[in-house]
Amino acid sequence: MTKEKYALGIDIGGTKICYGIVDASGNIISDVKKTPTPKTVQEIKDTLKNIIDENYDKIDVVGLSSAGAVNLENTRVLSSTPNLPAGYNSIDFSTLSDKKVYVENDANCAVMAEYKNGAAKGFRTVLMITIGTGIGGGVVSEGKLFRGSRGNALEVGSMKIFADKRQKCTCGRYDCWESYASGTGLRNCAIYGAKNYDEFKTSIFKDKSPDDLTTYDITDGVEKNDAFCKRVFNQWIYYMFVGLVSLTDIFNPDCIVISGGMCRFIDVEQMEKDINKETVVTDVKVKIAQTENRAGMIGAGVLALEQI
Amino acid sequence: MTKEKYALGIDIGGTKICYGIVDASGNIISDVKKTPTPKTVQEIKDTLKNIIDENYDKIDVVGLSSAGAVNLENTRVLSSTPNLPAGYNSIDFSTLSDKKVYVENDANCAVMAEYKNGAAKGFRTVLMITIGTGIGGGVVSEGKLFRGSRGNALEVGSMKIFADKRQKCTCGRYDCWESYASGTGLRNCAIYGAKNYDEFKTSIFKDKSPDDLTTYDITDGVEKNDAFCKRVFNQWIYYMFVGLVSLTDIFNPDCIVISGGMCRFIDVEQMEKDINKETVVTDVKVKIAQTENRAGMIGAGVLALEQI
Repeated sequence: MTKEKYALGIDIGGTKICYGIVDASGNIISDVKKTPTPKTVQEIKDTLKNIIDENYDKIDVVGLSSAGAVNLENTRVLSSTPNLPAGYNSIDFSTLSDKKVYVENDANCAVMAEYKNGAAKGFRTVLMITIGTGIGGGVVSEGKLFRGSRGNALEVGSMKIFADKRQKCTCGRYDCWESYASGTGLRNCAIYGAKNYDEFKTSIFKDKSPDDLTTYDITDGVEKNDAFCKRVFNQWIYYMFVGLVSLTDIFNPDCIVISGGMCRFIDVEQMEKDINKETVVTDVKVKIAQTENRAGMIGAGVLALEQI
Repeated sequence: MTKEKYALGIDIGGTKICYGIVDASGNIISDVKKTPTPKTVQEIKDTLKNIIDENYDKIDVVGLSSAGAVNLENTRVLSSTPNLPAGYNSIDFSTLSDKKVYVENDANCAVMAEYKNGAAKGFRTVLMITIGTGIGGGVVSEGKLFRGSRGNALEVGSMKIFADKRQKCTCGRYDCWESYASGTGLRNCAIYGAKNYDEFKTSIFKDKSPDDLTTYDITDGVEKNDAFCKRVFNQWIYYMFVGLVSLTDIFNPDCIVISGGMCRFIDVEQMEKDINKETVVTDVKVKIAQTENRAGMIGAGVLALEQI
């Protein structure tokens, strides 16, 4: 019998670094510890080295979860990561230990965590959609993370849901799904609605300038049964639905897992019914993510264990 | 050294059945033969049995390429296949021989053929888009066909490129990519244009009723430098571009292969430039398919060899 192998899973966030020891099934078998994310590249490297040293004898491999696009060798973060110090991209994570160190994008870690030990456990093809300020995604099918040719796949927030240059996205391009269906998208729906819907005239927010409306004005207003906010919110849900149906037809998932700050506003049972009524492929379950703030640690650990 | 294994690749088309012996690299190492597709299920079964018997001693496995969605076990075709006889779905292909018989959807066979021995040879992640009356797709990444949870993935023709129920598709749903960017889509663009573009008044087709315009009126008119046809065609190309950019952001392919009856009208070099200017992921090559009418045979053979 082969001895079970363990990974140190480390989630490098903008404000804190969380870590714990993970097995191949995605169980955390140690305490979860955290430390503030240092402000300089050198301090980040030193902190990671100390965390690895502290656990060295108990682990076979190290998995890191990080914001940003990762290189094909899973040793560096390539793209800009606004919440981490300048020069973060210069770190070659493989040099931090003589054990193998594997870094993966946080959205990819999250979908693997949900597949192994979260809402999507036991499903074959899992599409995870993270809805916050923007929209991110990840896919695991038949146990394997879909990475694309350079590890950049699942930039689903950039999928265009109009083809007539209707609304400019913060990225400078037009009609990205995330400019309609993210948290920012809900605000965009509110601004559009304030200028175009009669319901705004009698809304609790009628004295606000349209451009001052916020995402949470709308979700608060829905709770207060405000007709304007409900119309804006329903439009936002429809944009969410349009993207999710397209992705269902494209990936034929048997499970969609939704996560991120906006996911609590989505009625997943209703969304599941609506998607299954519209899709041309087989039915899908829609669920809320379960691994939450442990997703990065678990996913990075599981993915690192697959490398050895 | 292991003896090389061979598959009998059989492409079951609506009018003819083509077959040949294929190696794991996607080379056809025999003559390619063809026979008309019989009109009844019993005759199709008998014909396939005879073809297998004829090659029995030279092969290790049988691969079939067929229109329609295929079950997870790759033994049956599940969905309707209008060009094949009623009852075709009742055939359990695994019973046709004591050698393993593997059936796969024709679009999936085609992308595997292009990856192994066609335009996408040597690339890591290949997205194939077939543009005919509708739009179909397939993805191979890191050598593996992406099938989704039930083998239905890559229904890219159903991706929505508008989110305001603008145009009804022949499928009964709204705003499917194929209702804008397929051969049928070009005709839809023509009908819309005839009713909305001033250029129609001076077009060579100005005396036609908009609803009588055809796909090939427009492509002929473009060759004759007709301003109306050029505007319609450019709109169609833009719809094509919008879908291809979204799919590039979603799959991060390093190669897109375009095939089907409409592909000769697309300037792939220009499309490649336009996609790479717009995509948020790494650059992609856009190429025309090379395996053509041998795609089904090659892909089915290669995929069958992977099963043994």
